[in-house]
Amino acid sequence: MTTRVDVHTHFVPKAIPQAEGRNPLWPSILHKSDSSAVIVDGKVFRIIDDRSWSGERRLHDMADDGIDIQVVSPMPELLSHWFPAGDADILAMHINREIAALCAARPDQFAGIGMVPMQDVARAARRLDDVKALGLCGVEIGTHINGTALGAAALDEFYAAAEAADLCVMIHPLHPAGMDRMAGRPELAAVAAFPLETALAATSLLTHGVTERFPKLRILLSHGGGALPWLLPRMQHAVSLGPPLQSLFARDPHAMARSFFYDTVLYDPRALRFLADQVGIDRIVVGSDYPFTIKQDRPSAFAEAALASSPAAFIAATEQLLQRQLQS
Amino acid sequence: MTTRVDVHTHFVPKAIPQAEGRNPLWPSILHKSDSSAVIVDGKVFRIIDDRSWSGERRLHDMADDGIDIQVVSPMPELLSHWFPAGDADILAMHINREIAALCAARPDQFAGIGMVPMQDVARAARRLDDVKALGLCGVEIGTHINGTALGAAALDEFYAAAEAADLCVMIHPLHPAGMDRMAGRPELAAVAAFPLETALAATSLLTHGVTERFPKLRILLSHGGGALPWLLPRMQHAVSLGPPLQSLFARDPHAMARSFFYDTVLYDPRALRFLADQVGIDRIVVGSDYPFTIKQDRPSAFAEAALASSPAAFIAATEQLLQRQLQS
Repeated sequence: MTTRVDVHTHFVPKAIPQAEGRNPLWPSILHKSDSSAVIVDGKVFRIIDDRSWSGERRLHDMADDGIDIQVVSPMPELLSHWFPAGDADILAMHINREIAALCAARPDQFAGIGMVPMQDVARAARRLDDVKALGLCGVEIGTHINGTALGAAALDEFYAAAEAADLCVMIHPLHPAGMDRMAGRPELAAVAAFPLETALAATSLLTHGVTERFPKLRILLSHGGGALPWLLPRMQHAVSLGPPLQSLFARDPHAMARSFFYDTVLYDPRALRFLADQVGIDRIVVGSDYPFTIKQDRPSAFAEAALASSPAAFIAATEQLLQRQLQS
Repeated sequence: MTTRVDVHTHFVPKAIPQAEGRNPLWPSILHKSDSSAVIVDGKVFRIIDDRSWSGERRLHDMADDGIDIQVVSPMPELLSHWFPAGDADILAMHINREIAALCAARPDQFAGIGMVPMQDVARAARRLDDVKALGLCGVEIGTHINGTALGAAALDEFYAAAEAADLCVMIHPLHPAGMDRMAGRPELAAVAAFPLETALAATSLLTHGVTERFPKLRILLSHGGGALPWLLPRMQHAVSLGPPLQSLFARDPHAMARSFFYDTVLYDPRALRFLADQVGIDRIVVGSDYPFTIKQDRPSAFAEAALASSPAAFIAATEQLLQRQLQS
């Protein structure tokens, strides 16, 4: 039987140790009789429930979703790239230990992606050893580090260390650009701006040559790469025009875009087929955004039907992304 | 014989009257023996040639491109939404007269789209009468008005006047959000950020109900709607989840997106097919971005081949967009 893996599921710990003197945005988890909430800055950031931390509950939902293994990564707001680095470091160590504990209890059902304090690049690079020692297979980072673009040379030390440690990097949209262009409700961040933000971050990586300088670095783009696949024809056309636009990219943009892995959180089979046509099915891994509202149900069945493909097609890419054997 | 129309071509006048005391960003046109340039703030903004203003030269290129009628709109940087309104008004009157003159000389080959000083909404609304009197069929606006989102209630007076005057509104990306997320070369604005910016502007219009409040307003989104078509499945999924996300949109996002017209400047037949699948071929009009570098060659042939369609399919939408009979 082929193993089905959901690479895009999020985690919030059941509790976060409080500490005097931390950043005022330090999160806490509030439990009531019928629900729980992540509290940030004294306000409810998100209503959650035990799906965010309970392995048992997740296994039940995985059965419903036709998923054998979940890859568990922090709820993006926990990444805390805007904290003083020391606070982010302490939070990261707690989150990483909690994710590692979930995975260690059921190593055949869960794999973990952790986090490091990216606002202090040298420290983030050093912490990858701890992430590795915990048995996690990668780290999640935002689409920008408190305003620093992902292609900035300042982050090279982190990319080099992730490549050396054989840890994948999951890029998740966070505090997206352009909210003022919509001037609407804050939910438009996730509903509309997230895919655009991921396209900007991926373009930064491509045009600054990060994927060329670190060819063994495995990068996962959330939500099918955001709008990057949609931009590829325009980028390809620009490059085909010769100088000066040609030198925006080191190589053919379509070929460069195959440096990334892409999840299937696209909802529409036509979108997933477009992605596969642009980057190749061998770069696509299954994801869902479990357990949050916008989650895609039965993600592997969706991907298999959309691409008329067996689950084995995705497992090869997933094993490559995680550098882990997933089926016997 | 069916008429083939290119709705997305740009214009720069051969000369712009200089005036003392104008905004320092007031543009000028510099002519040298072998080329010309738009000068802004003392620097070359863009190298251009007589394709930007010469009807004769354009007719020659239209023959090569298989195009019978060009719709001519201002080079977006000329929109000058960041000028004092009085300066933008004077520049708009000059540009509109020049475009109208090009069209009046060859009314069967050219149709015009003008501009109004959007930073003064009441004045912009009044100026639509002049635009109409010049025989132009619409106005071009940027994806934001010097930072004001297109869905802002402050712009309703303009939309109401455009609807009443039966003038279409062409939305073109300009000074896009998110450049700091890439931290790369300025050409990335047009190559990568433009389609994302258009998606933000279109989302603003949809979520603020502009297309619902002005149902007869005809809006053309440049570059195939930017990334809006790519976002529609995510928006549709969000709405399908019920409250609170459902109320982000007044109706089904796919149905609302059919309020817009979309040009074909997408370069890849697979992208154009995706657009047609999302919004319907009856909302699609042919465009090229002539005469600028990123122009799509032979745009009607591209669209006809990609959608296995006759040129007649696009003419119906184009006549509806321009409210003009285009073939006998």
